[in-house]
Amino acid sequence: MKGTPPVNSTPHARPPILIHDPTLRDGHHAVGHQLDADQLRAYAVAANTARVPVVEVGHGNGLGASSLQIGRAKLDDATMLATVREALTSSRMGVFMAPGWGTSDDLATAVRHGADVVRIAAHCTEADVTERHLGTVRDLGAEAQGVLLMSHMTGPGELAEQCALMVKYGAQAVGIMDSAGHYLPDDVIERVHAIADAVDVPVIFHGHNNLGLAMANSLAAVDAGASVIDATARGFGAGAGNTQLEALVAILERRGFDTGIGLREVLAAADVAADRLMKAPPSIDSIAVASGLAGVFSGFKRPVLEIARAEGVDPIDLFLALGERQVVAGQEDLIGDVARQLKAATR
Amino acid sequence: MKGTPPVNSTPHARPPILIHDPTLRDGHHAVGHQLDADQLRAYAVAANTARVPVVEVGHGNGLGASSLQIGRAKLDDATMLATVREALTSSRMGVFMAPGWGTSDDLATAVRHGADVVRIAAHCTEADVTERHLGTVRDLGAEAQGVLLMSHMTGPGELAEQCALMVKYGAQAVGIMDSAGHYLPDDVIERVHAIADAVDVPVIFHGHNNLGLAMANSLAAVDAGASVIDATARGFGAGAGNTQLEALVAILERRGFDTGIGLREVLAAADVAADRLMKAPPSIDSIAVASGLAGVFSGFKRPVLEIARAEGVDPIDLFLALGERQVVAGQEDLIGDVARQLKAATR
Repeated sequence: MKGTPPVNSTPHARPPILIHDPTLRDGHHAVGHQLDADQLRAYAVAANTARVPVVEVGHGNGLGASSLQIGRAKLDDATMLATVREALTSSRMGVFMAPGWGTSDDLATAVRHGADVVRIAAHCTEADVTERHLGTVRDLGAEAQGVLLMSHMTGPGELAEQCALMVKYGAQAVGIMDSAGHYLPDDVIERVHAIADAVDVPVIFHGHNNLGLAMANSLAAVDAGASVIDATARGFGAGAGNTQLEALVAILERRGFDTGIGLREVLAAADVAADRLMKAPPSIDSIAVASGLAGVFSGFKRPVLEIARAEGVDPIDLFLALGERQVVAGQEDLIGDVARQLKAATR
Repeated sequence: MKGTPPVNSTPHARPPILIHDPTLRDGHHAVGHQLDADQLRAYAVAANTARVPVVEVGHGNGLGASSLQIGRAKLDDATMLATVREALTSSRMGVFMAPGWGTSDDLATAVRHGADVVRIAAHCTEADVTERHLGTVRDLGAEAQGVLLMSHMTGPGELAEQCALMVKYGAQAVGIMDSAGHYLPDDVIERVHAIADAVDVPVIFHGHNNLGLAMANSLAAVDAGASVIDATARGFGAGAGNTQLEALVAILERRGFDTGIGLREVLAAADVAADRLMKAPPSIDSIAVASGLAGVFSGFKRPVLEIARAEGVDPIDLFLALGERQVVAGQEDLIGDVARQLKAATR
């Protein structure tokens, strides 16, 4: 490489990469699910202008998740979907659902409101819970995708098996989420390779930035054969945030991959996100580093901080202890128990 | 990998990595060089407690750079050095000097105030300007290091030659800075490999995060043979910031490299930096992405924004055009010319 980088001038010799943009879903975690219709519309218009292929929207935890326990969204699912649908003239609309929070009725509502791509999520070892819902999505005529959460908690072989199961159930793309932001690039490479070898549908990767490696992990996933990469404007997402969309587009372009996204327009969309959606861009605080290192879902941050304060234990100790117990989303009730054990142990 | 990561429990099978922390120098760019003595002291104490090997301090552009044109620092060099020196009981103190801004007198002042490690910086193709100053540092009895700025502007072979020259001049460690945050990991690997093959002293890498790859590039540098890695608390540094110190420590620890730094204490030091030094943690805005992609020093951001506004051109267009002209620090006067050419071209 000499001098100026080949900005916007690289011939596209490599396979196309489909960017899937959950700014309006994963980013919702960062603002307590309180985006209003004007905010959804402003970003959806900007992403559509940038030719982002899929714009995902919803409560941070997906369809049907708005609740007192998880956090009530400002808008109901139908309103969010109708708002974004109206703004998208070329981008497809995506939704996310984790069985347990969402139901078949929620899927029907989503597709009726124009969802084109429906992701069904399961804990990394529990793909069997996606069977019925993936079938429902296919029956409804939308594109069905399957994703495995907290995927660092098991190895390449099992992830490949679980992804193959989801393909059998009807998934038209499958992959892994680094829900805790725990991966190093080599971890991603071995996992994505194993999955790509086991299935004949596009492989998805979704990163989080707890250790500052969301971008590197996403590029590693591409190199290992993933072709659907999740990325959000300014990295807007749970905890330390996601892979940063506009930087990913710039890098993929420079490396000769075609995303179909306009660089200038996606930089403008990121500015809309920064100005309209977020209080501050995501950053990697010490809690984020600890939760990434411990392999604990970033969504635990608020309860961990509250319980650590109430029990008088160090929140970083608490995150590391929760990592040792391998807690996963849905096990928030364990936080208090672990905190009290920590407290007892240090007396 | 299964379940919990090996937090603080990995046997150290790999060579030690020396972390060099320019939080109080590169971070100075982010606050217009306005850190006061209490701020310097608070962070230096915290970094010393974390056993950070080298704590660098000074004006963002280094010794002697405080000026009306570049920006006046709140404190003079002697005061900054004396303040940090007093706080460090085990960490060594580092300083940075670019010939042209600093002089031999500044070097003498720095060593008299207890600087242990003195870095002499040059544009990536101009190592010859470091000869006299590296000699001076050796004569003064401090550790002399040589670093090449804007190192993406030339290739591995020339960087290796330039580093070898600095070793000949007396440098006891040499390496490269990614001043524009332009590198992808493969770029770093080929360059660090070439340098490590050409010299028999430790190799230095200093990253910036414009494309979200500072961490990945630093890990790539380690894999390619670099053993002195620059990193700052919360990434506090020019533009999009530097490699994030506390996350780097966590990752290196997890990968079995010994840094000698205490993880809990460095997380605490990062919290001190976040609470005491910065208005907000660094983030990657659209200008940062554009300047990284274009390969233009982040320090151009303020003048580029001002001139773009005055001339009515898009700052991102201006950054990309400056990248095409391969401008480097010291050529700020070209910004206006390029802006006016852009304006004329779009009429």
